[in-house]
Amino acid sequence: MVSTKKVGILGATGTVGQRFILLLANHPYFTIHALGASSRSAGKTYKTATKWKQSQPIPSHVEQLVVKPCVSSEFKECDVVFSGLDADVAGDIEMEFLKADLVVFSNAKNYRRDPVVPLMVPTVNAQHYDIIPHQRQHYGLKKGFMITNANCSTTGLVVPLKALQDAFGPMSHIVVHTQQAISGAGYPGVPSLDILDNVVPYISGEEEKMEYEVGKILGGLSKDQQGFDLLKETVVSATCTRVPVLDGHLESVSVKFVNGPPPSMDAVYDVLERYSSEADALQCPLAPQSPIIITKEADRPQPRLDRELHRGQAVSVGRVRPCPVLDIKFTLLVHNTLLGAAGSSVLNAEIAVAKGLI
Amino acid sequence: MVSTKKVGILGATGTVGQRFILLLANHPYFTIHALGASSRSAGKTYKTATKWKQSQPIPSHVEQLVVKPCVSSEFKECDVVFSGLDADVAGDIEMEFLKADLVVFSNAKNYRRDPVVPLMVPTVNAQHYDIIPHQRQHYGLKKGFMITNANCSTTGLVVPLKALQDAFGPMSHIVVHTQQAISGAGYPGVPSLDILDNVVPYISGEEEKMEYEVGKILGGLSKDQQGFDLLKETVVSATCTRVPVLDGHLESVSVKFVNGPPPSMDAVYDVLERYSSEADALQCPLAPQSPIIITKEADRPQPRLDRELHRGQAVSVGRVRPCPVLDIKFTLLVHNTLLGAAGSSVLNAEIAVAKGLI
Amino acid sequence: MVSTKKVGILGATGTVGQRFILLLANHPYFTIHALGASSRSAGKTYKTATKWKQSQPIPSHVEQLVVKPCVSSEFKECDVVFSGLDADVAGDIEMEFLKADLVVFSNAKNYRRDPVVPLMVPTVNAQHYDIIPHQRQHYGLKKGFMITNANCSTTGLVVPLKALQDAFGPMSHIVVHTQQAISGAGYPGVPSLDILDNVVPYISGEEEKMEYEVGKILGGLSKDQQGFDLLKETVVSATCTRVPVLDGHLESVSVKFVNGPPPSMDAVYDVLERYSSEADALQCPLAPQSPIIITKEADRPQPRLDRELHRGQAVSVGRVRPCPVLDIKFTLLVHNTLLGAAGSSVLNAEIAVAKGLI
Amino acid sequence: MVSTKKVGILGATGTVGQRFILLLANHPYFTIHALGASSRSAGKTYKTATKWKQSQPIPSHVEQLVVKPCVSSEFKECDVVFSGLDADVAGDIEMEFLKADLVVFSNAKNYRRDPVVPLMVPTVNAQHYDIIPHQRQHYGLKKGFMITNANCSTTGLVVPLKALQDAFGPMSHIVVHTQQAISGAGYPGVPSLDILDNVVPYISGEEEKMEYEVGKILGGLSKDQQGFDLLKETVVSATCTRVPVLDGHLESVSVKFVNGPPPSMDAVYDVLERYSSEADALQCPLAPQSPIIITKEADRPQPRLDRELHRGQAVSVGRVRPCPVLDIKFTLLVHNTLLGAAGSSVLNAEIAVAKGLI
Repeated sequence: MVSTKKVGILGATGTVGQRFILLLANHPYFTIHALGASSRSAGKTYKTATKWKQSQPIPSHVEQLVVKPCVSSEFKECDVVFSGLDADVAGDIEMEFLKADLVVFSNAKNYRRDPVVPLMVPTVNAQHYDIIPHQRQHYGLKKGFMITNANCSTTGLVVPLKALQDAFGPMSHIVVHTQQAISGAGYPGVPSLDILDNVVPYISGEEEKMEYEVGKILGGLSKDQQGFDLLKETVVSATCTRVPVLDGHLESVSVKFVNGPPPSMDAVYDVLERYSSEADALQCPLAPQSPIIITKEADRPQPRLDRELHRGQAVSVGRVRPCPVLDIKFTLLVHNTLLGAAGSSVLNAEIAVAKGLI
Repeated sequence: MVSTKKVGILGATGTVGQRFILLLANHPYFTIHALGASSRSAGKTYKTATKWKQSQPIPSHVEQLVVKPCVSSEFKECDVVFSGLDADVAGDIEMEFLKADLVVFSNAKNYRRDPVVPLMVPTVNAQHYDIIPHQRQHYGLKKGFMITNANCSTTGLVVPLKALQDAFGPMSHIVVHTQQAISGAGYPGVPSLDILDNVVPYISGEEEKMEYEVGKILGGLSKDQQGFDLLKETVVSATCTRVPVLDGHLESVSVKFVNGPPPSMDAVYDVLERYSSEADALQCPLAPQSPIIITKEADRPQPRLDRELHRGQAVSVGRVRPCPVLDIKFTLLVHNTLLGAAGSSVLNAEIAVAKGLI
Repeated sequence: MVSTKKVGILGATGTVGQRFILLLANHPYFTIHALGASSRSAGKTYKTATKWKQSQPIPSHVEQLVVKPCVSSEFKECDVVFSGLDADVAGDIEMEFLKADLVVFSNAKNYRRDPVVPLMVPTVNAQHYDIIPHQRQHYGLKKGFMITNANCSTTGLVVPLKALQDAFGPMSHIVVHTQQAISGAGYPGVPSLDILDNVVPYISGEEEKMEYEVGKILGGLSKDQQGFDLLKETVVSATCTRVPVLDGHLESVSVKFVNGPPPSMDAVYDVLERYSSEADALQCPLAPQSPIIITKEADRPQPRLDRELHRGQAVSVGRVRPCPVLDIKFTLLVHNTLLGAAGSSVLNAEIAVAKGLI
Repeated sequence: MVSTKKVGILGATGTVGQRFILLLANHPYFTIHALGASSRSAGKTYKTATKWKQSQPIPSHVEQLVVKPCVSSEFKECDVVFSGLDADVAGDIEMEFLKADLVVFSNAKNYRRDPVVPLMVPTVNAQHYDIIPHQRQHYGLKKGFMITNANCSTTGLVVPLKALQDAFGPMSHIVVHTQQAISGAGYPGVPSLDILDNVVPYISGEEEKMEYEVGKILGGLSKDQQGFDLLKETVVSATCTRVPVLDGHLESVSVKFVNGPPPSMDAVYDVLERYSSEADALQCPLAPQSPIIITKEADRPQPRLDRELHRGQAVSVGRVRPCPVLDIKFTLLVHNTLLGAAGSSVLNAEIAVAKGLI
C-alpha cells in the first residue's frame, strides 16, 4: 500500500483535463490538490470555469476548487503534475514546472523528441524510466522529472507492434491508416458542419508524429542509459483521417518483418493474447487486465462497442490476416482520451510510484 | 444525334434502381420503358412498390408505371436492360435475359469473373468492348450482350491507377483502405445502431472483390480478342470499412511501380489532371468533363463536399505525396451509387450506342 | 437482506433483453436462471444466438447459457420472468406464462390496457400493486401476477407530471413533443439511410400510446381495489419523432392545471427537486437517488450528457419556464432502455420483493 | 424582361453569404458585382478568404473577386445589397448602407422590430412593401430602402399559418416545437462534440424571436401605410432545439382558431394545397411552383428527403391531424438557408424589381 500523493492538473478545463479529473477523483494513490488553466479561467471555481462534456458529472469535491494560473509556485505542494495543455502553451509552462523540480506528465508534443525525455506508453516501454537519473542530472533536479505521452494514434499502434517485435523480431515496414474520433481534437474542436455525413482525410501534423514516434517508443535505451536508440530498420507510412465518432481511434495496420518467413495467423493471435506488461506485474490500479484484447468476430473491434473495455486502457485487436503486399494485417482500436491520453499519463505515474520514483 | 432507345430497369425499387431512374428520366439516348422487381412488387405501380429514398422526387411519368416480374418476355421490346439486382438473384435472371438476346448492363458480382464478359469502368477500359463479337458467338446471340460494372470501391480506385499505369508503367504493389458510405449496402442495409457514433471495419466479400477486379480491369484483351489478360505483376491489399456517410467512398491508396525511380509528385499530379477517356472523346452525355478532378487543399477530397462534382461521374484525387513504404500515396473519392454503380452502367451504355453496338 | 430469486428473461437476445442481462448479472436479489428467445435461437448458447450491441461485454456466466423456447414449462423454476418480447408475440406467450402461475414483468403493449393489470412506472405508481390480490383471483393464480411497463416516452413524462399533480392538483391539458432515440426501435430497427442527417417525424402507434397511458398511470385504483380510475380531466396531445441519437428520449412538455393561478417557476423547481418515491423508501437497489434530477444550465438536459445519471433510472428535467399558451413548459430526458424499459421492470420487481409479493 | 442589376453581398464568406453567391451566380435579374466581409478578409480574393462549405463549387467568375470592407462607399455602384452579416455587426453597417441611399436586404435580427422596416417572407407578406414610401421619407432617401428577413424557423411557420388565417380566420393559440439544422448556426457554429449522438434543447434567443415575429408578419399595415398592426389575438409558445441534421428545420405545430368549429382535416389540406402567393403571380424566377408542398405519407416531411424540393423555396407540410388540446396539428419543413435565409432575400428582391421599386 502506498500513501496518497497530491496531484495538480494543468489544462484542467480541456477535454484531456476532464478525463484526468474523472480518473483521479477516487484514486488509491493520488488526491486532486490543485487545478490549473488559462488566465481566463484562473480565479473561478472549476464548475464555472469549465464546459464539462463528460457523461459522468463533475466529482462533487472538485466542483468548488478554485482554478489557478499555470505557474509552478501555485503547484509546489504537488507530488505529481499532470498536464493536458495544448502544444502552443505547453512548451514554456511544462519546462518552467520541470525546472522547479516538479514531476511532470505531459500530453503535448513539445518534448516528445527531447533526447533525455521518455516518450512512454505504459504498457509498452516503462523501462525507459531508466533514463530518469540522467535526465535529473541533465536538468539539475533532485526529485522532479518529465515523462511525455505518445500521440493517441501512436499509442494504440505500438501496443500490438511491441508484442509482435518481441516475438518475431524487428519489423521493416508498417503501413497504418487511422480513423480518428472527434474528441481527439478537443473542444470546440471539429465543427459539426465539417464532420456530419463526412470524413476528413487529413489531420495536421498527425502523420508525421506517428511516423516518428514509433521508432522512439519501440527503440531501446542506449547502453549508458543516457539516450534513446531509435529504430533504424523500421519505416512507417501513416494516413490519418477524422470520422464522426465520439471516442475511439480505429487503425488498419499492415506489417512486414525483417526476417522471414512470416508467422502464421495463429502464432500472431497467440502472441498478442499472451502479451503482458510491467504495469500489470507492478499491480498498478489502472493497468488493464491485459494490454491487448482479441476480438474474434469478423466485424470487430468497433469504436462504440469496444472502446470502454478494460476501462479504456487496453487495445482491441482483430481481423488478423495475411497481407498480400506486406506480411500480415490487422485492425486495432484505442480509446483516444483514456489509454491514448489521460489514461496513459495516470498509469505512467502509477508505475513511477511503484518504482519509487515519486 | 442518336434515336431514342427503350430501356428496362431490373431491381428498379432498390437504391441502385432508383438512381437508374433519376439518370434515365430525361436522357437524350434512352427512354424508360419497363421496370422490373421482385414478385412482391410486380403488378403494383412504381410509386406504391418502392420506398423512395432520393432527395429528388420520383419523375412523374415513372410513378404510375406498373412494375413487372423480372422475366425476359416482359422486356423483349427493350433495346437495353439495366440491372440493379442483388447478387442472390442476379445470376439466374441476368443470364435468362442474355440468352433471350437482350443487352444487359449488370451491377452484380455474378458475371464479373466470367471469361467472356467485360468488367467495365467507362472512363477506364471501354476498349474491352472488343470482346463482344466473341461473347455473342459464345452465347449464340445476334444483338444481345452483357457488360458488368465493377464493385463501387474498385471503380474509384482504377480510374487514377489507369492514368498512372499509362504514364509510369506497371505497378507491383497497391495498398488501399476504403471508408465506404452506407448507401453502398442498399436499403434497409446498415442498421443505424451499427453505424451511429461508429465505424465497422469489415464488409463481407469486399476486400476479395477489390483484390481481384483491379487485375481484370487494368489488364488487356488477349491478342485474339477472345479473353482477358489479367495483370500478373500487380498485387493488391485491400481493407474495407463502413462509415456513417450517406454517399461517397473515400479511399487511401499507396502504390509501388515496377520500374524506378518513382515519379515526382508534380509529375503524378500532371498525369492525373491530363487523363482523359474514350467516353469523353465519344461525347457521351454522362461523361464527366474530366475523369479525374484534382483537389489541392490539404483536407480534400471529402465525401460531403466533393461527391456531386461532375454529376458524380468523376473521381476526385488529392493529397498526392511520397509513401515511405511504397512509392506514392494519395486519397480519392468516388460517388458509390453514381460512377460506382448506376452511373457507370449508363455511361457504358452510352459508349455502346456511340460504338454502334446497340 | 433478501434471499436470491431465480429469474428468467424472455426475448433475451433483443435490445431490451440485453439490458435485462446487464442489470441482472450481479443483482443482490436476482440470479439469471433461464433465457428464452425465438425458435431460431433456442438450443444455441446465448453467445452464438445474440447479436450483442452493448458497450459492456456479455457477462461471462451468461455466455454459455443455452437459450430456451418461450414456453412456461421451461421456466417453471423461475421466481420472476422478465419479458422483452415484441408485441407481435408477447400477447400469447406472456398470457401462457401468467396462467402457469408465474410472475411476469412485461415490456410489451399487449396488456397495458387490461383492466386488472397495472401499467407501472416504479417511481410513480407502485401503489397499483394493491390490485394484485384481485388480479390473482381473476386469473385463478396462487403466486403469479403480471405487471406491464409503460411505453418508454410515457415513462419519462409521468415522473415529473406525478410530482406536479401531487403538488398543484389535476392537470387539464398536456402538449408533449418527443425526440426519441433509435435504440427504442430495437435491432435492426431504424435503417441508417432513414436517420443519418435526418429526423423522422412519425413513430407508428406511439402518440396514441402516450395519449392513453398517462391517464391510467396517474389515475388511482378504484375504491374496491378491483380496477383503475383513469384520469378524466386530463387531455394529452403527443407528437413523436425519431432522431439520430443512440439512447435517451428528450421531451418538450407544456402543462395547464385545472386550478389557477399557475405556480411560480421556483415552486415548480422546488416540487420537482423534492419529489421522492416509494421505491426509494423501500431502499430498492436500483432506485435512483432521486427520481428527478434538476438541470439548471440553459441547454440541458441533453441525451449524451445526462442519460446515464443515476444509472439511467432518474428523469432529468430542465428549462422550466412559463408557457404563453398553457401554464408552464419544460424539457425532460429519460433513458429509454433503462428507466424506459428494462430498468423499470427490474425496479418494479425489486418493489414487489420488498412488498413480499414475490 | 428586366435589365440586369448590380448586386453586392455583405458577409459574403459566411454560410448565408455562400448561399447568396450560389443563388445569384446565374441569375436573370442580378449580377454579382461586389463582395464584402470583415477586415480580416478584405483585400483577399474570395477563394482565399472563404472556407467554402457548399457541395457545389465556387462559381468560377466569383473566385477571383477581391473582397471589400463593408462600407457603403465600396458598394455605391450596387443596385441591391444583400446582407448575411451577423447581428453583432449588422446593426451599424446596414444602417450606414441605408443612409447612403442603398437598397438593403438583411438577414440579421437588428431591424426586424423597427417600426418602418418590413419583416418579410416573400410568399407571405409582400404587400408590406407598401410602407416603403413612408420608410424613404422617414430616412430621407430617394431610392434606398431596407427589408429584413424573418428568422429561419419563423419563416417556415408563417407560410402555412398565412394560408390557414386567410381561410379560417384569426388564430388564438399556436404551440410550435422546432428541430433545427446545424447550418443555422453558421461556421464553425455547433461543435461536433455537442451534437453527435445528441440533441441540444436550447438555441439562445430563438424562442423569443418566433413568439414575436409571427405577429408582425401575419399582421397588416396600418391604414395610413406608415406602420404595422401586429396581431393581438394570437399567442405563440415556441420551443427550439438543435439536431444533428445539416440543412432543414422541422417544426411540429398545434393551432387553435378564434372561431369554431375547427375545420376538417380535408379542408385544411385543401387550403394549404391551393395557397398561392404574389411572388408567383409576378413570375419571379425564384418563386416556388407552389409555396406549400403537401406530403401525404405518414412519415413525411423529412429534412433529408424534402428540403431541396422546389429549390428549397417551398415549405413542406404533412401529418395534418386533430390536436386533442388545440384544434389541429401538423408537421412542416423549411430549408433554413434557402427560403429560411438567402432564398427569402433574393425572392424579396425579385418582387421589388417586379414592383418597380429597384
